Amino acid sequence: MRIVGSSMLSALQRLSTIKPPTLVSNIRSLSSFGTMSLPERQPFSPDFFFRQLFDGESSTYSYLLADLKNGQAVIIDPVLEQAKRDAQLVKDLGFQLKYAINTHMHADHITGSGWLRKLTGCQSVIAAASGAKADRHLQEGDRIDFGTHVIDVLATPGHTNGCMSYVIKDQGCVFTGDTLLIRGCGRTDFQEGCPRNLYENVHSKIFTLPENFRIYPAHDYKGQMESSVWEEKRYNPRLTKDIDEFVKIMENLNLPYPKKIDASLPANRECGVYDIPKE
Amino acid sequence: MRIVGSSMLSALQRLSTIKPPTLVSNIRSLSSFGTMSLPERQPFSPDFFFRQLFDGESSTYSYLLADLKNGQAVIIDPVLEQAKRDAQLVKDLGFQLKYAINTHMHADHITGSGWLRKLTGCQSVIAAASGAKADRHLQEGDRIDFGTHVIDVLATPGHTNGCMSYVIKDQGCVFTGDTLLIRGCGRTDFQEGCPRNLYENVHSKIFTLPENFRIYPAHDYKGQMESSVWEEKRYNPRLTKDIDEFVKIMENLNLPYPKKIDASLPANRECGVYDIPKE
Repeated sequence: MRIVGSSMLSALQRLSTIKPPTLVSNIRSLSSFGTMSLPERQPFSPDFFFRQLFDGESSTYSYLLADLKNGQAVIIDPVLEQAKRDAQLVKDLGFQLKYAINTHMHADHITGSGWLRKLTGCQSVIAAASGAKADRHLQEGDRIDFGTHVIDVLATPGHTNGCMSYVIKDQGCVFTGDTLLIRGCGRTDFQEGCPRNLYENVHSKIFTLPENFRIYPAHDYKGQMESSVWEEKRYNPRLTKDIDEFVKIMENLNLPYPKKIDASLPANRECGVYDIPKE
Repeated sequence: MRIVGSSMLSALQRLSTIKPPTLVSNIRSLSSFGTMSLPERQPFSPDFFFRQLFDGESSTYSYLLADLKNGQAVIIDPVLEQAKRDAQLVKDLGFQLKYAINTHMHADHITGSGWLRKLTGCQSVIAAASGAKADRHLQEGDRIDFGTHVIDVLATPGHTNGCMSYVIKDQGCVFTGDTLLIRGCGRTDFQEGCPRNLYENVHSKIFTLPENFRIYPAHDYKGQMESSVWEEKRYNPRLTKDIDEFVKIMENLNLPYPKKIDASLPANRECGVYDIPKE
């Protein structure tokens, strides 16, 4: 028997053993949409290639970006164990990988930049302040180009001293590493963590970007893949607090010691080129 | 000591204990880019909201889409365990969820459409041929609208009889469910699986879309999040074969019995509204 139309609701209600929750009444009606609502998106341009990639083991997001007019590409925050997958994708798409760029020296996984460097001939890139080896060391204000596209480099220390955020103004997006996560932020209780720095950098450098800018973080643990400046300014449960309350929250997280930090930091200082998986 | 510039290469090579692989030579040089290269993208329009979401347990992708002018939204392939996350996101963004749409009756997880229906007041949607309960049953050629945006419904059976693919022509994208995966496809050895049907439908209805159309599948198990018609027509290891070879491949996969099928199918026949997690 198939139940359709208005009889469906009662059939479904009978099947459920719990009371309907009250969220429905909290959702704005259509007629009120537009007041303080999410701004229109700035579309990616037709010649801008964007592909988000995921490493399930470390819940890390990597981002392959390219200029479709000449095939120059960069990858942000590649992961060692996924380097072959990423190199294959670069090859499939006919791109030339110019840079493998890290947002910071990761403590939870080994960067794929050293391995991709060997697989594709790209250059590795990280902040000078990270203390890690790389072909190119960044300072705030530097610009990284691939084809006609340009990444502006912002120093956003707080999670680590060498944390950078990467902005592509013409595409309306920012890659925030562990500085700003979706409804969260990176921890500040190891490496050179400093909650006050993190807060000030997010508020002065990321929350001041246009509200429709997309935010692409280095991780998410709940299956969320992107956010926007508009959303995090309103809903980030930590960074919407005042600075003193934020510092208090961050100093009382009582998180366990990062399980891979002892293996990751020495490897990432060397650009992730040791402990490479055997073929 | 920090090593930079040309000395970096030899330093990195010394650190690595393995020989550089040969992929570099296989990658096209910049000067050859453009010959048979990836076509330019069709950007999403500024009023089209797109957000991909992930369920790690079942490796399922869900897609929240909305019209930013009036807030009407739909979600494709929601997962029961993520329904509260998804309802919260809909609320944060000020959207009104109009439909929770399934690409098919899933065998590997319980749909979130029944639970979202209760949380948000949306209607549940699935193919009539699925045999599952829903508020709205689809046939090929049906159109689903949210605000000014329109989803065109294509029947693409093969993985199951009720498999639909959803095309949004103006945005240049197709949601393929389990019919076409990234460099793969759904299995055809249970429910009403038929490899010949799957092959014919992919070739006649998806591979005939413009090559720059983005492909968004229901699953990926390798951290890949999207593909394109251009890519799958060239690199899908199964669907680039001829039909007889494809059928042979699919009949010899020898995959294990899906571990959640016995719980998922009865629940999904009822729109996923029983076995809802307790608050």
